[in-house]
Amino acid sequence: MDETMRGVILHAPGDVTVEDRPVPHVIDPTDAVLKVEIACICGSDLWPYRGLQPVEESPMGHEYIGTVVEIGSDVKNVKVGDFVVGSFCLSDNTCEICQSGYPSRCVNGGFMGDTQAQYTRVPQADGTLVVVPGGKPDDPEVLASLLAASDVLGTGWFGAVAAEAGPGKTVAVVGDGAVGLSAVLAAKALGSEQVIAFSRHEDRAALAREFGADVVIAERGEEGAAKVKELTGGLGAHSVVEAVGNQVSMDQAIASCRPGGHVGFVGVSHDQQIDGGSLFFSEVHLHGGPAPVRRFLPDLIDRILKKEINPGKVFTLRLPLEQAAEGYKAMDERRAIKVLLEV
Amino acid sequence: MDETMRGVILHAPGDVTVEDRPVPHVIDPTDAVLKVEIACICGSDLWPYRGLQPVEESPMGHEYIGTVVEIGSDVKNVKVGDFVVGSFCLSDNTCEICQSGYPSRCVNGGFMGDTQAQYTRVPQADGTLVVVPGGKPDDPEVLASLLAASDVLGTGWFGAVAAEAGPGKTVAVVGDGAVGLSAVLAAKALGSEQVIAFSRHEDRAALAREFGADVVIAERGEEGAAKVKELTGGLGAHSVVEAVGNQVSMDQAIASCRPGGHVGFVGVSHDQQIDGGSLFFSEVHLHGGPAPVRRFLPDLIDRILKKEINPGKVFTLRLPLEQAAEGYKAMDERRAIKVLLEV
Repeated sequence: MDETMRGVILHAPGDVTVEDRPVPHVIDPTDAVLKVEIACICGSDLWPYRGLQPVEESPMGHEYIGTVVEIGSDVKNVKVGDFVVGSFCLSDNTCEICQSGYPSRCVNGGFMGDTQAQYTRVPQADGTLVVVPGGKPDDPEVLASLLAASDVLGTGWFGAVAAEAGPGKTVAVVGDGAVGLSAVLAAKALGSEQVIAFSRHEDRAALAREFGADVVIAERGEEGAAKVKELTGGLGAHSVVEAVGNQVSMDQAIASCRPGGHVGFVGVSHDQQIDGGSLFFSEVHLHGGPAPVRRFLPDLIDRILKKEINPGKVFTLRLPLEQAAEGYKAMDERRAIKVLLEV
Repeated sequence: MDETMRGVILHAPGDVTVEDRPVPHVIDPTDAVLKVEIACICGSDLWPYRGLQPVEESPMGHEYIGTVVEIGSDVKNVKVGDFVVGSFCLSDNTCEICQSGYPSRCVNGGFMGDTQAQYTRVPQADGTLVVVPGGKPDDPEVLASLLAASDVLGTGWFGAVAAEAGPGKTVAVVGDGAVGLSAVLAAKALGSEQVIAFSRHEDRAALAREFGADVVIAERGEEGAAKVKELTGGLGAHSVVEAVGNQVSMDQAIASCRPGGHVGFVGVSHDQQIDGGSLFFSEVHLHGGPAPVRRFLPDLIDRILKKEINPGKVFTLRLPLEQAAEGYKAMDERRAIKVLLEV
């Protein structure tokens, strides 16, 4: 195995480089090390990139698929050579919180990092990784879709589940980033009757339609919510996914939802204050947080291998890892929906 | 029928009188008029009484039981002579929102008023009122409990249902007012495994225990939440009812709940801001609002008539209607949990 690898480092807002770093090895007996197959950049990576949250110099990335190259002595569920997908949230998948469906808040959990690199160390490997049946697929579209399952698809899926999307429901999705588009795909895959996307970018609106949106609304804020009410007999959507994480998007999501309906929020919250009185009189259900992707992974992998869903289409730009800086720039300038990095 | 009646008027903060007013009559064909049996004062009446929300000179009260004395031409479900309980929320009980379980947000709805009086007009009578089987009970405790069902019990019950209280669950209740105590009763009646109340007033703590609380915690805020975690293996309660409506109570409720758990909030929200980031990482479910009491009324009436529950115990002071001012004062000074007015 190599002694050094290439990996992405964020030094300061706007300053991304790819550098030589030591290949990681098992530290704790519950760790595994993966040779990363393909990597990608997340919308949430843009928060520090834009200087909208404090930045320390740090390796980047938390989405990953790859081949197990090393395991700790306690690891039982994966072995060297397995091709795996993991969640961006680490989990033992055995604690009471995991078992209740929230591996994203495992009592022994944490967040994955340092995956925009050739190798990565995965703590809590047994509870975090899922082996892809049949081994590594050849089809690059399937690989891209499996990578998407690691976070962006799993997060959009959780948004749709938290919003109780499903048969008979009208589902509105606020946010046309990769998570919002994945939520559109999820809402449709879960059998929702009508899916409404919000977008004013033709490329994103087109992908929303391809993923199953029946209607795309260009209006935002109160006007956007008014459009949803127009489409739903004045009542509002049964289910709304908030996939941005700011004040406008949350207010729009709550205003688009009918009384007794469900808002699933999965945009990482930044400076959001939810007015208690508005929430009280809206009488919606509100649920969200870091997505418990591990809960959904076996089902998502199955749907991807059967080609029922093709979430990898959110990757509209592919670059070699060495050009990660250009990848960040393209996402920041919204020239790409999501960037895949070839390792 | 009398031409004038006595009724409570709030003129300004702290200024309550009982005055002669015209007896109300049917205005709309969907109205009914009731001869009020007993009336009461709600914790939410204290907000304007304390000047914590804008006050216009207005008749008071929204909880009621009584005998139908007049009906509009469209009223089919109740007839003159029926003894009825109604919700504080008006509802047609037929619209899509009512049918989905939220009569509190009926498209033709509104709020009841002017019930601290000898007679009261109930709009949307067919969808708002429920006839008490067997007619007017003789037992004054049963009458008090039926009156409680109109709002305070129904609201506590909704809090417990919104928090998904039930078998196997540990339920914490923030707030030792009449609604919080009713939520304790509801959590127990719904079969919860462990019920935790917060109170530092011995009379309220005693009633909480009588209503089914297994533990009463005196600590508040972060210390209170820490106590709940101590009692639940470090995880937090499965279900938390927020029955106050201010910032401290909401923060305490969210902090007391485990990831994936449910917070039901039924305290009328005043100047609450819920931090999106804290809510996101708490990963709780949040649901509340004006209680859809009509949904629960038939079940609550049945449980009361069978004496399975005795929610009327929240009335710790009985006064004649003429002494309403003293009733407001006693509740404001927390000398009484809830005041019943004999009409």
